[in-house]
This record gives sequence, structure tokens and C-alpha cells, in this order.
Amino acid sequence: MKRKLKVAVIGCGFMGRTHTNAHRQVANFFDVGIEPVLEVACATDADRAQAFADKWGFTSGSGDWREVMGRDDIDLVDICVPNNLHAEMAIAAAEAGKMILCEKPLAMDVAEGRKMVDAVEKAGVANLVSFNYRRVPAVTLAKQLIDQGKLGKIFHYRAQFLQDWTISTEVPQGGTATWRLDSAAAGSGVTGDLLAHCIDTAMWQNGPITRANAMTETFVKERVHADTGETQPVGIDDACTFFCRFENGSLGNFESTRYARGHKAKYTFEINGEHASIRWDLHDLHRLEWSDHRDDEEVRGWRSIHVTDAGGEHPYMDHWWVPGLQIGYAESFVHQLADFLGAIEEGKPCSPSFRDALQTQKVCAAVLESAAEDRWVDVPAD
Amino acid sequence: MKRKLKVAVIGCGFMGRTHTNAHRQVANFFDVGIEPVLEVACATDADRAQAFADKWGFTSGSGDWREVMGRDDIDLVDICVPNNLHAEMAIAAAEAGKMILCEKPLAMDVAEGRKMVDAVEKAGVANLVSFNYRRVPAVTLAKQLIDQGKLGKIFHYRAQFLQDWTISTEVPQGGTATWRLDSAAAGSGVTGDLLAHCIDTAMWQNGPITRANAMTETFVKERVHADTGETQPVGIDDACTFFCRFENGSLGNFESTRYARGHKAKYTFEINGEHASIRWDLHDLHRLEWSDHRDDEEVRGWRSIHVTDAGGEHPYMDHWWVPGLQIGYAESFVHQLADFLGAIEEGKPCSPSFRDALQTQKVCAAVLESAAEDRWVDVPAD
Amino acid sequence: MKRKLKVAVIGCGFMGRTHTNAHRQVANFFDVGIEPVLEVACATDADRAQAFADKWGFTSGSGDWREVMGRDDIDLVDICVPNNLHAEMAIAAAEAGKMILCEKPLAMDVAEGRKMVDAVEKAGVANLVSFNYRRVPAVTLAKQLIDQGKLGKIFHYRAQFLQDWTISTEVPQGGTATWRLDSAAAGSGVTGDLLAHCIDTAMWQNGPITRANAMTETFVKERVHADTGETQPVGIDDACTFFCRFENGSLGNFESTRYARGHKAKYTFEINGEHASIRWDLHDLHRLEWSDHRDDEEVRGWRSIHVTDAGGEHPYMDHWWVPGLQIGYAESFVHQLADFLGAIEEGKPCSPSFRDALQTQKVCAAVLESAAEDRWVDVPAD
Amino acid sequence: MKRKLKVAVIGCGFMGRTHTNAHRQVANFFDVGIEPVLEVACATDADRAQAFADKWGFTSGSGDWREVMGRDDIDLVDICVPNNLHAEMAIAAAEAGKMILCEKPLAMDVAEGRKMVDAVEKAGVANLVSFNYRRVPAVTLAKQLIDQGKLGKIFHYRAQFLQDWTISTEVPQGGTATWRLDSAAAGSGVTGDLLAHCIDTAMWQNGPITRANAMTETFVKERVHADTGETQPVGIDDACTFFCRFENGSLGNFESTRYARGHKAKYTFEINGEHASIRWDLHDLHRLEWSDHRDDEEVRGWRSIHVTDAGGEHPYMDHWWVPGLQIGYAESFVHQLADFLGAIEEGKPCSPSFRDALQTQKVCAAVLESAAEDRWVDVPAD
Repeated sequence: MKRKLKVAVIGCGFMGRTHTNAHRQVANFFDVGIEPVLEVACATDADRAQAFADKWGFTSGSGDWREVMGRDDIDLVDICVPNNLHAEMAIAAAEAGKMILCEKPLAMDVAEGRKMVDAVEKAGVANLVSFNYRRVPAVTLAKQLIDQGKLGKIFHYRAQFLQDWTISTEVPQGGTATWRLDSAAAGSGVTGDLLAHCIDTAMWQNGPITRANAMTETFVKERVHADTGETQPVGIDDACTFFCRFENGSLGNFESTRYARGHKAKYTFEINGEHASIRWDLHDLHRLEWSDHRDDEEVRGWRSIHVTDAGGEHPYMDHWWVPGLQIGYAESFVHQLADFLGAIEEGKPCSPSFRDALQTQKVCAAVLESAAEDRWVDVPAD
Repeated sequence: MKRKLKVAVIGCGFMGRTHTNAHRQVANFFDVGIEPVLEVACATDADRAQAFADKWGFTSGSGDWREVMGRDDIDLVDICVPNNLHAEMAIAAAEAGKMILCEKPLAMDVAEGRKMVDAVEKAGVANLVSFNYRRVPAVTLAKQLIDQGKLGKIFHYRAQFLQDWTISTEVPQGGTATWRLDSAAAGSGVTGDLLAHCIDTAMWQNGPITRANAMTETFVKERVHADTGETQPVGIDDACTFFCRFENGSLGNFESTRYARGHKAKYTFEINGEHASIRWDLHDLHRLEWSDHRDDEEVRGWRSIHVTDAGGEHPYMDHWWVPGLQIGYAESFVHQLADFLGAIEEGKPCSPSFRDALQTQKVCAAVLESAAEDRWVDVPAD
Repeated sequence: MKRKLKVAVIGCGFMGRTHTNAHRQVANFFDVGIEPVLEVACATDADRAQAFADKWGFTSGSGDWREVMGRDDIDLVDICVPNNLHAEMAIAAAEAGKMILCEKPLAMDVAEGRKMVDAVEKAGVANLVSFNYRRVPAVTLAKQLIDQGKLGKIFHYRAQFLQDWTISTEVPQGGTATWRLDSAAAGSGVTGDLLAHCIDTAMWQNGPITRANAMTETFVKERVHADTGETQPVGIDDACTFFCRFENGSLGNFESTRYARGHKAKYTFEINGEHASIRWDLHDLHRLEWSDHRDDEEVRGWRSIHVTDAGGEHPYMDHWWVPGLQIGYAESFVHQLADFLGAIEEGKPCSPSFRDALQTQKVCAAVLESAAEDRWVDVPAD
Repeated sequence: MKRKLKVAVIGCGFMGRTHTNAHRQVANFFDVGIEPVLEVACATDADRAQAFADKWGFTSGSGDWREVMGRDDIDLVDICVPNNLHAEMAIAAAEAGKMILCEKPLAMDVAEGRKMVDAVEKAGVANLVSFNYRRVPAVTLAKQLIDQGKLGKIFHYRAQFLQDWTISTEVPQGGTATWRLDSAAAGSGVTGDLLAHCIDTAMWQNGPITRANAMTETFVKERVHADTGETQPVGIDDACTFFCRFENGSLGNFESTRYARGHKAKYTFEINGEHASIRWDLHDLHRLEWSDHRDDEEVRGWRSIHVTDAGGEHPYMDHWWVPGLQIGYAESFVHQLADFLGAIEEGKPCSPSFRDALQTQKVCAAVLESAAEDRWVDVPAD
């Protein structure tokens, strides 16, 4: 008989849906000893929470997240709200002894992030930040190849996250759908929203970033607020480019923008090592490109690995279908949850923990500071 | 309050999983007035059925499909078993007044198929055959573009379904995992298993096939049976190539094999029209390639459409995530079920019905007959 | 001091240019002991011949090919005229003891081809037919990999040659620019013009084709003649699909059409062997795709080999630039000439000889006969 | 009767070959009123010069470039030697009243470059620097699309030039084959050799770069000298990344390295505008990728334009073959020469002139200074 874990999902938007779907699917595809039970869905608007609860099969909906934190029957709090609410909720959850799964980025800034880390570590509760792209099978395979030493010494790490949805000056900021453009809710623009993913993956694969040098731009200077209709200055970064040094001596080049016409969510990375190189592209997320210099030169070339083999060769894929059949974006959240539940079952930490995510927050902070001050900025190691 | 539809899934293998997952997901993503309830999972082995039922949340498991058919509370029978059992089960279900979702191909042969069509039409029960690839968004988009007349007169239709999993002579035939290689269970080889998909999609998009000329080959002549360990002759076609004529005057070229090293499940089609052409590849199922001669020549070229827009432009995608984020193979079954439930709700037929699938069965039969007799064979229109 | 070879180029159109360019470039890039000298350019229209001669640096131009054949100082006759003139010119050249380079296809039909073979063999003159695509480095590399046994037993050979330039009914037939659409000048349509290339490459790589089964179509039934302005029936095949058997047991699937919207000159082939597969596409002619099942499964995938390495690993490429820098279409003619000159120097035959090309002619004839008679047709071995 | 232009090619290495080939081919493919005559090939080693002259059909070879400059019959000096010799030779040529085609980068540094500009402008001689990639048809097409305003306001310009040929510590520096690794001969590493190309193309397409911020690295600190066998410190930059501002408000991100395993000569750029985006890759140089937001969303996607149309739609391609048939790297030098000769004929300047190339030199200098001093550096406008 499986141990049941009663879950409260806070936030019923895009991320609320991806997390809830994972809670519903995980036990069908992964043999974990702990099974999530959808107990309560929570949103500011109680009706919206109830409708969400009905659609997804939660026991109930609630318009009061503080009340939910206080309930003894809730085991896990899953925070899927805008960034400016992460700290308050996570700290309350930790203090209530709940396990916590929190959407990325960890916090609005490093100071908030530190408090969150302190809270979960003091409470000793299981914690994980949802940098889900780590658990796309091709990305996980890349990490495995690096850890096996197949690339040798690494020279270069490059990542881009390119979008084009905010080019029109008609797009508002703030509100439910466009809070990511409102610095009050999001903290920063592409840096916290998109580069945070790139940085998390990069440091996981290639070790700590020690210093960074950045340039940012805000192309559209004013936008109407979605709720108030008032024209306001835009406080976020529309685009951010930075280069950096990793502790292992390799060079990093990162860029994100929401003004790259033709790209919907083009997160790519490329890693160049002494012996081999790797490329990946979220737009074809089930593929990993691999170039190995040790291949016979006659037939040497970039391989397009269709990461769908189901016999154990490709991470996570033995849980799904048969070779050649893809999974999608949503499954990365199922993998994340399976790993988290497995770690909870074994009483071990799961990465990226709040502490891991704090390090990503520090890099983001260094990047923004560098851009503001036109100079290299060091990233503190702890 | 939604109408509940009690479902019996017969068969707990690969297809049992894809169908069950669709039953579990459909109401979370689609607003249909009818909601499936997982009532009973059925397999020859009652323990296996029970384990499957437990894993996926069915009310119960059963080792006796006939008993299930007799239950008054079952509304929909979902047949996910080897081909040789389709007819008997479907006819029994029809006679018991159940709605039926049946895996493809419809039957072992045309005669069986006709009986199945007669049974469901006589009983007046909702019926659908699971040619799921029609409901991959990029494939559905291709159909829409054709129906809008954007290709103009069509000259060519080409499809291939290439695999490589049976090249080793060590692969057995028969049994649970390899029944597709056993002519007694599968009826035919690549023709019924893979080309049936290609033919279904082709006739849906491009109209009836009227005559065909085929060549087949069985590369490995004998295999060990998975259950008995006895070496037996192989009765299936390992490879099949055919060309054909469509009623609209276009030429078809179809090929399938399980001896195409390097291809896992490479189902591709290409359609060449007077004004534009379309290509698709299951290995990158979220993309559609489009070439439009009416574009300015200076910038004319094949477009790679990432069929993930969520604002209504791309079929089904408004039900999932945000632009740029892929879905996978499994979602095609969710779409299929959503459409079937919607049709049931409206009291309308849903395609491909048993009758539609019978036409595909006739093409398969003509192909096999042509290969056996080395001559063109006509496909009867009804 | 290099031996000089005085060359007469007959025909000053598209092929006259590719061949003349090769004569001009070969000694700059290849160390062959024989150097071509551009002696005379010949065309029906003497002024056109003279203008061509001036542009390309021939000693003179001529409007009388028979006179050219009679000149003692001409060593090599290079035939670049429409198909219906090949036999007469080649036989005259052979009788005059000239070496012969002849454009493809060899002849209008097998009977003509046999006479041409007889003529060159009787005269004992060096002879080569210009199936230039064999000498695209990636195609030559494919041949090498097959000959090394890297594919193991071959199961499938597929080739397509797709174009779209004759879809408009306004395109005339006959005349200088569109003689390929006039059966009187071309003999056949896509079969002789395009499939002949595919068949030549296929038999070179994979051995003899023994029997074929074909379907052809002429989509536009009447066209205006370019010279006379009269509307005439179209006598050529606009599209041709055939499947076939190779002597080695593998299955072939070939298709060509000029009605594949969006394709300019898309000649592709794919070869599936027991251990590995190969793909190639003329539209990216410097790349070869390679999938090797013996690679570790974790990183197994199709490799895109950029066939531009200059250290001897990639055929012909040590004669050009540095790794990564492409050559184009024209260089395949330079390679062909370098090989022919090398063979002449060594007194050896060079393939595809007239005799080799006759075998391709026989396959084309079998294909056309099969399509006309709706049945399999055997290809005579000699 | 065409005007003849007597050419001296100085340097018989890789670039000597590409330039000489262009001189030989230009009049066969382009109707320019001036025809180059290969008069003298020059190299430090007179025997090598003579062998080169014999192979390529120069009237003579010479081991003394100063003597060549003094010859009255030489009209055009084509400088194809290491960077440290450009200034001295070009200034001598200018003073002798010769027209000059000079390999890139213009000079070792800005000071040298200024002297060269002064010399050619004072002498009033035709001058061009060989940034040949501008004349790859796909790159030229990109420029045309930008100039037509099809991209609208430009937000981002990204370029990379990635190689992997110096990863081994065994590669020497200096000498004939590896002078590019020797700072004494090359001036800088990837910045002058590779990024200079990217910067030239970028400013041609997108206007002036006003300031830059860079990071460089030298991964291998010591190498053996190819001539002396002595181990010496490496003085060049192995890798360089910089971001920058363009005068038009767009952001630039540039990177080059010779430590990107798997890349031979991967020069790519991407330009993101308000309405459309462009991508290009030297490894498939005949293709341009184009994404236009004004396309119907249903069929919107990146187009792969095969820039081989011969009817005038694609730059330069009406001079070569038929649609679908590629040209290669070498043809970019033919185009450059055709344009230069055409400009000479018309008495107009041709870009990139020495003055244009000086601006690229200034950006390179700013980049290197920025990397050395860890700060933003402005690029002087003149």
C-alpha cells in the first residue's frame, strides 16, 4: 500500500496546470512508494480555485492560502504563483512543517532567497525548486555524458533563451497573464524568467559561475497596466546578454531576449569539450546533438540522437512508450515530481534544492548588477 | 454536472496504457460534456488486469472479457488487444449495445471487417477506430490546409513508415511483446501494422485509393516462437512497397519496412500540389513543413512550422501549454478521445468509424493480393 | 611536360558550360599527366559556337560537328547535345578514333545504345558517360563505405529525383531551353533525364537491378512547341515511380517527377543495411547522413557528415580548400574529368563506360515497358 | 575587345589559390569589360612561385615582390600573404600606382591600417579588401532584405565563427601553414582572423558598432614554433566573446573560438528585426533561413531558402547553373572580383574598400583593448 501525500497547489495558472498534471500522472508512470493526492487547489479568487479543483479532481478549492498552510492534513505545498509571493508562502509553509515544491526563480532577490533557504533548512522540510528543464531526457542525458567524462576538459558553454511575444507595444504589463512584464511581480525580466533556467542547467552540468559581465536593454519603455489601464514605465529587462567564467576555466556566453522574432521558446545550449560537443534545443526537446572527435574521421559528424529509447539507455524514457515516440514539455514536470517523491521516500535531498536555487539567484543578481554598473561582477560562492 | 461514461479497457499492454492515459487526461484538458470513468481493466491474466487496474485507478480488474461485455454498467468498450481478437470482441460489444473504441487495424481481413461494420451499424452504437496519428496537431493542420484548397490540384502523395527493430534473427515471434510478428495474431506484418496508418491518413487527406500495385518481402524466414520456443516459418511481410492511384488523379507511393536501420518509428508523408507542398515526420511530430509557390520567389523556401501556437491557429494546441512547448505521442490519443466524446455528446458519427476503417482494410487487402499475384489490384469502392 | 589533349566540345548549352569549365579547371586542382586544351567549340549555330569559344578561350568555334570529327588534331570529343544526337555523333567520333565523353543518358533507346557500345569497343577508344553525381564527394564516400562492408547486407535502396519546373501549362516543349520535354529530342521524360542518374548511382553502389515494376503519368497532355508555336501532344513521362529487385536481394523504390512543388533538383537516396544506413540529398550535396547501429546506444543517432575534410579522409576534397568549406555542383564534373584523364593516362577503362551506361539504359527501358504494360519486366543482364 | 588587366598575385598559399582561381573564372561567368590576365605569381621562395605559376598559367613566377611592384606592365596587385606584410606591400603598390586587392584583415593594427588608407587614397588607386563572405549569395540576399526594410527595426545581431583545429597542443605556431597562430605574423588570433569577417558583414548589414565589451582566452599557453622547433609563449587569442551596441540601437553578440569541438568553419549570423528574422550558416552556405511574422500564423515558420534560383531573384546566381544546383566557397571570390572589375570599369569605389576595412580594424582593436582592460571601449567613428 502506497503512502499518500496530500498536496496543496497554490496558483491555478499555467504553472498550476503543469504541476497538477504531474501529480495526476506520476504514479501511472513511475513506481514511487509515495502517491500524491490532490487535496486542495488555491487561488486568490475562490471561484477560480473551485473551478480548477473541479476540473482536475482536487478534493476542494480555496481562496485563502494562509488557511491552507494551517491545515494539518496537507503534506506538500506546491507554489505556482508569481515570483513576488514565493518568499512569503514558502516561509509560511516551512514554518508549518510542509514539504515544498516552489516554482522558479526562487525569489525576487538574493536577500529573500536567503530567508527562504534559512526557513526550509531550519524546518528540515523537503524542498525543491522547479527548474524543470533539467529533467527533459535529452538534457539529463547531456549531464550524464559530461559526468562520464566523455567531453573531457570543457572550453565553452553557450546558452540562449529567445522569445518574441513582447515585441508589440500593445502587450500590457501586470495582471494575471502578463505579470512577467511587471517588475513588481516578477522582480526582473528575461534574467529571472528565462536566463535563470539557463543558469540552473549550466551550473548543474558545468559547475559554478564565478564572475559575469552583462548588458541589458528595455526596448519598450512604457506599457499599459493590464489591471489599471494606466501607462507606466517598464521596469524589467527585455533582453540580457552576458559572458562569464566558470570555476573549471571554461567560458560562458548567455543571452535571452523577448525580441527575437520567429522564436517562441527557443532555449538552446551548446557545450564544447576537448573530445566532444553537445547541443540541445527546446523546440525539438527530444533530440540531443552530439559530436565526438574520437569517431573515425571518414564518418565523423554531428549526431542527432532521438532520445526516446526505452530500454534504459535514455533517462526516464523506459517509463513511457516505445522507441521513436516522443514525450513533450509536460513530462519534464512528471520526472521532477518522480525524483522529488523518490528522494522524500529515501529521506534524501533532491536537487535543485532551495539552496541550489539560491546560487542561481546570485548569478542573476550579479548579471543585473553588472549591466547596471557596466563592469564585471563576482558571484559569491556562498 | 457532467455525464459519466463507464469505460472497460480490454488489453493492458502498450495500447492499453495509451488509451487509459487518454481517459484519465481528457477532462483535464478538454471541455467535453461527457467524462470517462475508469471502471474495469481486462486482460487474459486476471492478476495482470488487477495490477493494471490498481496502477491506473480503475474500479476493478477482470480476467474475463465476456463477463465484462455482459455488465449493464459499462458504457464504452475500449479494445486494445491483438488484431485477431478485434472482431469477436467488437461484435460482442456491439450486440451488448456498448459504444466501441477499437485499436487499428480494424480486423484480420476484409470479411471480418465487414461483419464488424454490420454489427456496429445494426446496433447503432458509437464506434471509432484508433488511427491516432490523424490527431497529431501537425497532421490535422495538413488536412485543414488541403481542405482550404491551399495546395490546389494534388499530384503526388508519398508516405513511409520505417522501423528497424526486427533485423536481428534473435527476435522471436508471437507472445505478448512480439505478437506483431506472428501472422496468426497480427494478420499481416508491416501492411496492417504500419501502412494501415499511412493509408488511413492518406485517404482522409487525399480521398480514395482506387488501385494498387505492391511488392512485399520477408527477410527473416524463420523465427522462434516466444511462448513455445519452437522455430516456425514467418508468415508476415517484413517490408511492403506499393504505388497506387487516387480517385482524384494523384499518384501514391507508399513503403514500410522493419529493416530500415536507424529508424525507430519514422512515419513520414509528403503531398505535392499545384500551389504548395506539405511534409511531416513522426520523429518530429510537432513540426509541419510547408512550401508555398505563391511566396515571393526571393524568400521562397520550405517553412518549418512549429505547430504549437495556442491561440486557435493550430489544431488542439489551445488546450495545452504556451507557444513553443511541445506535446508528444500520447496526446494524439487524448485528442482522439475528446473528439469521440464530443461526437457522442452530439449524437454524431466520428471518423474513422468502423466503416471508414473497413476501406483502409480493403486497401491493405488489395496491396497484399497485388504482391502475392504480381499485378495491379483494384480497391472496391464499397 | 604534360601531354596535351585537344578537346572538341559539341554543344554550347548548360552541359557545354559544365564540361568546358571542368576542362579549364582540372589541371589547376588535380595532378594528372594529361592536360586538356580547349580547341574547338561546336554548335548548330556557328555564331553561337564562336561566341562560346571566345568566352571560354577555345581556339575556335564551329557550326559543323562532322567537320570537327574529321580533324586529325582533335583527341577528345565531348558530346553535350540533346539525347537524340548522341548516337550519331558518338559513333562518328569512335569511327574517327576519338576519345569520347558523352552526356547522359547514353542514347534514345537500348538499340541505339548497343550500337554506340559496339562502336567504341570496336574502335578501342576511351569512353565515359557523364553521370556526374557519382563524383560528388559525399556520394563517392557512400560508395566507399558500402565497399568497405560497413553496411553489411543491404535490405533497401531508395532514390527520388524531384523537380517542379514544368507544372505550369505555359512551359513549352522542344527548342533549345525545353528540349527535355520533347520526346523527339529527349526520348523519355523524367525516366531518361533524372531516374537515369538515380539508376546509375544505385547500380554502382548496390549492384545490378534485375526486374522492375513501374507506373508513369503525363499530367499535362499538350504543350506548345517552343520553335513552331504549334500545340502538340506531350510524349514524355512527367512522373515515374518504380519498385525493383536488385541481384543482391535488396528492394528498390525509385521515383521521379517534375510536379513536386517546392523541389528544385531534389535528388536523394537512402540505403538501409544490416549494420548501418546512409542518406544523401543533392540540395545539400556536401553532406552525407550516416547511422551506425554499432555506436553506443546512449549516443546513437544519424550523423550529418560535412564531407569537406581535406586530409585524405573524404574523396576528392584534398584537392580543394580547407575543412568546412564547400564545393558545389560544378566540381563533380572536374572530378569526373580528372578520373577520366587519369584512366586515359594509365590506359585503363573509366566507369561509367558506354557499356556501363547501356545497363542503365536497359533499366530505363524496362521501367518504361513495365509502365506501358502494367506488369513486372525483367532487365536483361547483358 | 575586352580591356586586359595584368595581375600580380603575391602569395601562393591557400588565399593565393582562391584569388587566382577567381581571376581564371571571372570572365567565363560574368560579362565584365575588363579581363584579368595572370601575369606573375610571387612568393618568397622563387621555385615555389614558379611551380604555382606553371600550375595556374601565369606568364611567370617571381621570388621578389619589390621587383614586381616596380614593373610597369602590372596593373593590379593581389596581396595574399600573412597579415604582417599587408601594410608594406600595399603601400608600395599604391605608391607604384597599382590597383590593389588585399586579403583581410587590412592590417596588424589601426595605425598600420591608417597608413594604408592614406596611401591608396593619396595615390587614387582602386582598392578592395577581401572580406569574401559578403558575396556568398545567401549573405548578399540577407543584405538586400534588410535594405528593403523587410525586417523593420532591428533589435539583435548575433554572429559566431567556431572552429576546432587548434585544440591539440601538438599544433605548432608560425611557419607557412600555421602562421595564423603566431602573433608576430597574424597580429591577433580569432579576433583578426575570424571575427573580422563577422564584424565586416555585420556593419555592412546593420551599420556601425559604437562600443564593445569583450572577454578573450588563450587556452594553450605555449606552442612549438613550426620553423625553429622552439617552445614559445602563445601571443594570440584562442577565443573571443564580445557584446556591443550598434549605432541603430540594436544589440550585438559575437563569439569566435578555435576550441569548439565539432565545428570546422562554422560562421553563423542571426538578425532579429521587428517584422522578420534571418539566419545563415557557412556550413550550408547556399541556404538562408527566413522567418516573417507577417505570414499567416497558421503556416508561419522558418523558411529554408535554397538560394540557387537563376532567374535574377537570387544575387549572382543567374551567372551559374540552374535552380537547385549549388555553388561553393570559391565562387564568393569570383563574385568579389566581378564586382571589383565592374567598379574599376565604371571608375567607382568598391566596398569594402581599405577605408571600410579600417573601420573593422578599429572594432577589432576596441575588442582586444576591452578584453585586456576588462571594460567597455568606444569605437571611434573615424
